Amino acid sequence: MSKAATVAYLGPKGTYSEQAARSYFPESSKFIECRDIPEVFASVSSNSAAFGIIPVENSIEGSVNIALDLLFESELNVTGEVEQRIVHNLIAKDDVVLSRIRAVVSHPQALAQCRNFLRTRLPEAEIIEAGSTAAAVKTVKSSNDMVAIGSELAAKSYSMKILISGIEDSPNNYTRFLVLSHWQAARTGNDKTSTIFSTEHAPGALYEALGVFAKRKINLTKIESRPARKKPWEYIFYCDFEGHQEEEPIKEALGELRARTVFLKILGSYPRAGLG
Amino acid sequence: MSKAATVAYLGPKGTYSEQAARSYFPESSKFIECRDIPEVFASVSSNSAAFGIIPVENSIEGSVNIALDLLFESELNVTGEVEQRIVHNLIAKDDVVLSRIRAVVSHPQALAQCRNFLRTRLPEAEIIEAGSTAAAVKTVKSSNDMVAIGSELAAKSYSMKILISGIEDSPNNYTRFLVLSHWQAARTGNDKTSTIFSTEHAPGALYEALGVFAKRKINLTKIESRPARKKPWEYIFYCDFEGHQEEEPIKEALGELRARTVFLKILGSYPRAGLG
Repeated sequence: MSKAATVAYLGPKGTYSEQAARSYFPESSKFIECRDIPEVFASVSSNSAAFGIIPVENSIEGSVNIALDLLFESELNVTGEVEQRIVHNLIAKDDVVLSRIRAVVSHPQALAQCRNFLRTRLPEAEIIEAGSTAAAVKTVKSSNDMVAIGSELAAKSYSMKILISGIEDSPNNYTRFLVLSHWQAARTGNDKTSTIFSTEHAPGALYEALGVFAKRKINLTKIESRPARKKPWEYIFYCDFEGHQEEEPIKEALGELRARTVFLKILGSYPRAGLG
Repeated sequence: MSKAATVAYLGPKGTYSEQAARSYFPESSKFIECRDIPEVFASVSSNSAAFGIIPVENSIEGSVNIALDLLFESELNVTGEVEQRIVHNLIAKDDVVLSRIRAVVSHPQALAQCRNFLRTRLPEAEIIEAGSTAAAVKTVKSSNDMVAIGSELAAKSYSMKILISGIEDSPNNYTRFLVLSHWQAARTGNDKTSTIFSTEHAPGALYEALGVFAKRKINLTKIESRPARKKPWEYIFYCDFEGHQEEEPIKEALGELRARTVFLKILGSYPRAGLG
């Protein structure tokens, strides 16, 4: 658990990002709401906030592309991670009843994650997309026949009622958040390191790069490709593994990786969260 | 170039998917508009269409997650690919002027791809997300102060004016489409094969799998991880490489890959498009 600090998160109030920020940092911290993910990066870069927290990956939907792209560009370090079980709730004004619901509002990802629930329980309802789950809750605040899908915190923040809790289709629904700052996190003995690299566009190049980890039995916890942007169908790789960059055999592996890649960026080493 | 056929594409009329379908299949084909990507799969599965065409990857934004997930589930084969340079246009009613624009409507990916243009040229405009670029054009059809971002075909289909052409931030903006059918494509000598596999969750497992290709100098054209969904932070890999599954050394490599993976699905072999 970190010390109290100024923390920038992806708003509005009541998002899962705010829940993650509040679960990681103590209550006495100051939480600053940002409009979008680039603003979270900017707040920390400019020292308006000491830390930022961004969603990077959901266990059902996959990566948050904009977050990965900004990690590539930013000079900030990753100093922590938070994993949060996503529990979606059907949220409405106090006196709304299920049989009268005309429309369901939420973020496209939340709607996708409750597809089965919506199909079986609210097959007639119109689906309306919103910019965030919290914005959705705000939208239905005074409606008699519209409901939102969002977090418990969102229901609380806007004084709304939870009609049904846990409406997500899969119980394996987790979002992983990264904590950003200008700092580096010290070794704890149970750490992870995040890197981005690219290899030559030649047969076996990725294989050779991964060999750096395989031959040292370093466990990869994530590998993901993203377009390199500069040239169609070339890729950069986001690769996380167990261990801290200040300890062996990680230090040695990173040295060898630098020699085997055309680009290597070490985003940071940080204490592992529960599942990772 | 394929023969005339019934082809299902992601509608509405004027999407980049329709442009891709019309560039791949002859004009005498019958083009069927689908509401979403699952409907394209369903149309081909049920033989309402002989072929379907789906966007799978953009060179800037990365993969279309729902398309990858459906390829995993579907029994259809991949029998072709189309690569299309994406040119975004600012589209409006005839008499709309830039200085009066209040809002810009488009698909989230198109909005993201024109981020710099919007930030510098329309910093005050509200950003509104739509289900597709073509739907966006439809939305602004009779507005005096709203514009859409979409394809040339969309502007033409809805008799709208292109205010500015080529507003995408990157000239390296290509979308890759796959052609689906019940058939298999014959060898041409310049083919690609698409597979999906998963490995054991153990150090070096992915490395060993990629070794199958590396030691035969088979060139990977794509590798991408997606969440396995059944367990958080486990992955399946989408892997494309050069060569046809009916020819050596591909045949042998796939045999060895099957032994080294816990799951392997061969989506199909098909003629390579221009850039790939």
